[in-house]
Amino acid sequence: MADWLDAVNWNADGLVPAIAQEAATGAVLTQAWMNREALERTAATHEAHYWSRSRRRLWRKGETSGHVQHVREIRLDCDNDAILIIVEQSGGIACHTGRHRCFFQRLEDGAWRAVEPVLKEPRTIYDK
Amino acid sequence: MADWLDAVNWNADGLVPAIAQEAATGAVLTQAWMNREALERTAATHEAHYWSRSRRRLWRKGETSGHVQHVREIRLDCDNDAILIIVEQSGGIACHTGRHRCFFQRLEDGAWRAVEPVLKEPRTIYDK
Repeated sequence: MADWLDAVNWNADGLVPAIAQEAATGAVLTQAWMNREALERTAATHEAHYWSRSRRRLWRKGETSGHVQHVREIRLDCDNDAILIIVEQSGGIACHTGRHRCFFQRLEDGAWRAVEPVLKEPRTIYDK
Repeated sequence: MADWLDAVNWNADGLVPAIAQEAATGAVLTQAWMNREALERTAATHEAHYWSRSRRRLWRKGETSGHVQHVREIRLDCDNDAILIIVEQSGGIACHTGRHRCFFQRLEDGAWRAVEPVLKEPRTIYDK
């Protein structure tokens, strides 16, 4: 049972990098980490679950913000050590900064520049 | 100098996950790892360089296969601990299995299934 979970090459901490890509736009939204339980719950519930390394606990994306990621598809790479999930992003905001996605800094002339707008002030997302 | 490299939150091994996305199609091609030198060379040469954890050396993507990734854009996420590069994939093949991309296994009914075709036999890519 759960052979598909055993097939994943978990790292020494029991994690794999997980990339979330938006179905409608193709935008790469976030890169986070999953442990076995996070991946299992993601598959079972069709909502993205991750392992928070800073908080050391399982985390359902959107549990506080409401910005849930509805999972359409789960993929694994050739080395079985990276996950790609194709998602619908609730609220159109994946990033805790209130931006559409986390990859909003672009390298320009030797500096990182924020090139995407804040769509919603973080305090209005998290202070409820 | 190279403040932008110092801004990256390298992990304990001096690495960050790096995601390559194809400019023309939006396909997420690969997830690999970069160290400081790999990211610096990627920015300087506009060709993707990674750190091979298995071979423990810097690796210019395509150095053997010819399947170079020409880099159009380099992005950093909100936590400064993941890189996204937007690339043109030479030969249309990013994966060492001869497929368009590495994320060719899809979870279906509790099993991983290869859902993308091999475009070129690996032996014809690597045995030259």
